[in-house]
Amino acid sequence: MPVYSISHVENVRVCVVMVGLPARGKSLIAQKIVRYLSWLSINSKCFNVGSYRRQIVSDTQVTAELFDPSNEEGMKYRQEAVNAATVDMMKWFLEENGVVGILDATNSTRERRDRILKLCRENLIEPMFLESFCSDQDLILQNILDVKTTSPDYANRDNDFATNDFLQRIKYYEEVYETMDENTDSDLTFIKLINVNSQIILNRIESYLESRIVYYVMNLHIKPRSIWLSRHGESEFNLTGQIGGDANLSERGWRYAKKLPELVLKSLGEENKHTNLTVWTSTLKRTQQTASFLPYKKKLQWKALDELDAGECDGMTYEQIEQEFPEDFKARDDDKYEYRYKGGESYRDIVIRLEPIIMELERQENILIITHQAVLRCLYAYFMNVPQEESPWMSIPLHTLIKLEPRAYLTLVSRIKADIPAVSTYKEKGTSQLGELMNGDSISKSRDLIKDSEGRVILENK
Amino acid sequence: MPVYSISHVENVRVCVVMVGLPARGKSLIAQKIVRYLSWLSINSKCFNVGSYRRQIVSDTQVTAELFDPSNEEGMKYRQEAVNAATVDMMKWFLEENGVVGILDATNSTRERRDRILKLCRENLIEPMFLESFCSDQDLILQNILDVKTTSPDYANRDNDFATNDFLQRIKYYEEVYETMDENTDSDLTFIKLINVNSQIILNRIESYLESRIVYYVMNLHIKPRSIWLSRHGESEFNLTGQIGGDANLSERGWRYAKKLPELVLKSLGEENKHTNLTVWTSTLKRTQQTASFLPYKKKLQWKALDELDAGECDGMTYEQIEQEFPEDFKARDDDKYEYRYKGGESYRDIVIRLEPIIMELERQENILIITHQAVLRCLYAYFMNVPQEESPWMSIPLHTLIKLEPRAYLTLVSRIKADIPAVSTYKEKGTSQLGELMNGDSISKSRDLIKDSEGRVILENK
Repeated sequence: MPVYSISHVENVRVCVVMVGLPARGKSLIAQKIVRYLSWLSINSKCFNVGSYRRQIVSDTQVTAELFDPSNEEGMKYRQEAVNAATVDMMKWFLEENGVVGILDATNSTRERRDRILKLCRENLIEPMFLESFCSDQDLILQNILDVKTTSPDYANRDNDFATNDFLQRIKYYEEVYETMDENTDSDLTFIKLINVNSQIILNRIESYLESRIVYYVMNLHIKPRSIWLSRHGESEFNLTGQIGGDANLSERGWRYAKKLPELVLKSLGEENKHTNLTVWTSTLKRTQQTASFLPYKKKLQWKALDELDAGECDGMTYEQIEQEFPEDFKARDDDKYEYRYKGGESYRDIVIRLEPIIMELERQENILIITHQAVLRCLYAYFMNVPQEESPWMSIPLHTLIKLEPRAYLTLVSRIKADIPAVSTYKEKGTSQLGELMNGDSISKSRDLIKDSEGRVILENK
Repeated sequence: MPVYSISHVENVRVCVVMVGLPARGKSLIAQKIVRYLSWLSINSKCFNVGSYRRQIVSDTQVTAELFDPSNEEGMKYRQEAVNAATVDMMKWFLEENGVVGILDATNSTRERRDRILKLCRENLIEPMFLESFCSDQDLILQNILDVKTTSPDYANRDNDFATNDFLQRIKYYEEVYETMDENTDSDLTFIKLINVNSQIILNRIESYLESRIVYYVMNLHIKPRSIWLSRHGESEFNLTGQIGGDANLSERGWRYAKKLPELVLKSLGEENKHTNLTVWTSTLKRTQQTASFLPYKKKLQWKALDELDAGECDGMTYEQIEQEFPEDFKARDDDKYEYRYKGGESYRDIVIRLEPIIMELERQENILIITHQAVLRCLYAYFMNVPQEESPWMSIPLHTLIKLEPRAYLTLVSRIKADIPAVSTYKEKGTSQLGELMNGDSISKSRDLIKDSEGRVILENK
């Protein structure tokens, strides 16, 4: 009997069919849903029709004319692209046990949507339409600016050309666009987001998975903000190599706590130095001590941010665990994500209890979280889309502040080191030895690190 | 620094203004919201204008004529009732730190709603309108049947009279009813539920509290169903008086497990004996062993159903705790709901981790939950609206199956005893001694027990 999270209650497969004109944030919403569900171990994938179209029409650079409804050749290519994407999606549902597939395209006419509907029903997949409808011209223009600078369709193109061509493309779509309608489409399951969540229409949302997707999408906002992550300062247990417990900070840990306000200011930069952060800690002393010199008034404690519960191994060193529970020690190395300490937790258990924290983080603006190694790995995995096999093995060093800046299609990461030595708490697979005293450089080994002009490390969400 | 749950992130007060014709389920929704939020320790209260009106017009029995828009005296009385309810509500917000107040009335005209809006804004309270709109005649008739049999307005009245009078009352309301509208009301925060959640319109839902209420309401259904609760069978730890751990069932515990299928059948009755239940257990052996003879295919394990984590006291007896940690022992007796074991959990912590379970229970139909004493107390407290001071002290005996049947305004409770002896695990305040060997009779001491004609115990939600 496997352990179920809330996400495994039903045996439902859902095809989310995006609907909306270009530059309405469809791809962004689709990508976020996939990232969120994947983090919850729900097998999800996005099928972007634009990418298929670019493979089919790869010989020439695309211009708006391709999207002219009277351009028969263009229509043919575009139909081919949709067909290829849906064929791949159905294959993925059937052969790779897909649970939530997202068809990311404009799907702007009823005729097009009816075809997808039929295909879903033939394959016993629940179709859910997700329309992003926007009549706010400022929002649309902002989106156009984003798309222009990121779309492969306009790579190496002149700025003015790109803007005008894209506006023309939108016009062609507007000629045929049929929005989802409470009356005409009353038999369908759909969410219609109007002007970024200022109004939402929900129709026939029935399954649990659908209602989770709705709740997640409802909580998204597009205001710019940052999230800061830090482990607590070095603790007395860290010095002795013990895990768990509720120890005080070591002398060096206190030095980190005192320096933390300065690191935060540095990360804010001169022009934003008065930004008001909210500080979240766990209920354990070492995180609260680390937060104690921060000048921000709003500090909240969350039980959900407590360190992974090591159960019977709480307070032991890895060497002791290896000696006393050699089979458990090996089992954990073999599948660190799923392994649950006797009377304690697994990484999967942490993800389940962090889910409300993630939902709240999506709603909030500037938050600084001071928490623990395993919890921080899980939070980081959500923002950076790190797969399960990898996230429990990420090295997240002590005495380092991480700043995340979520952008449309990537998250900027900067890491500010305190330059205060700390022990390593990183245990490699197959050994009970911890690393050397270090300042810590690696976060995620298999990812490419990209540094921007200010020396910030950028990890693209894949 | 107190511990925050997700419900304490913001400093927002919300007035939920119900909107809709009579017999649209408004009071039911309002009561459920209050029960849910109260369970999450959010100070909530419902102000039912009908009750105020009955106090004002107490001399004669009410008939439909009171609701005739051309009846000036009737209008005056009804306006007085609204005024009294809103005055009380505002007083409650200000003097008793109210967080979510619900104004339960038809509020069927824009003019009426505008007045409430103005009052809320003057008092810095966020108004959120919640309309239940229903055009499905079958649903309306079912609701009329329910209201007729439960409304004090028709106590001791002839059935036909009640039905006709109530239909006439609805007609009077229909003459002046103005539904919430996406265009005219686009500046307001509102939820419009159409035909029991088959369509939902959300407008300007902004605060976290509002979005929680929306998500809860979205998950409600009105299909009849039952929920079964049982503790695991007596465990080996129960025999020695130890708390926590992951012990096996005792010999008597196994006897209970073997008898459980028969108890469930008995509770279903002959005509429903083929009802298919889903079984939820915790991840601990004693609940799974208890479920092992149940013939239902769908059995799910939830970490969130695990027993309260006693941290450093895990595996100890109450006597040992009293000796080793006398201060903690006393602190727990003084405030059992808030007391958190060192390295473990409090009742409040359990409620937070059970919240997704409650949400899922609201969505599901027939579920049998096999869990632990403290968790069962919290689940039971949700369904029966048991206050925090009382819920950690409820006696929920071993070897007893509890069946809950949620109805419109009350929950039927039946308890089926297995007649297999078990130790008592009930510890009274101020002692470390457990009760005598017993079969267990009490659940909630301060509540009136009402038995129906079949000997079932009924506890009314207050």
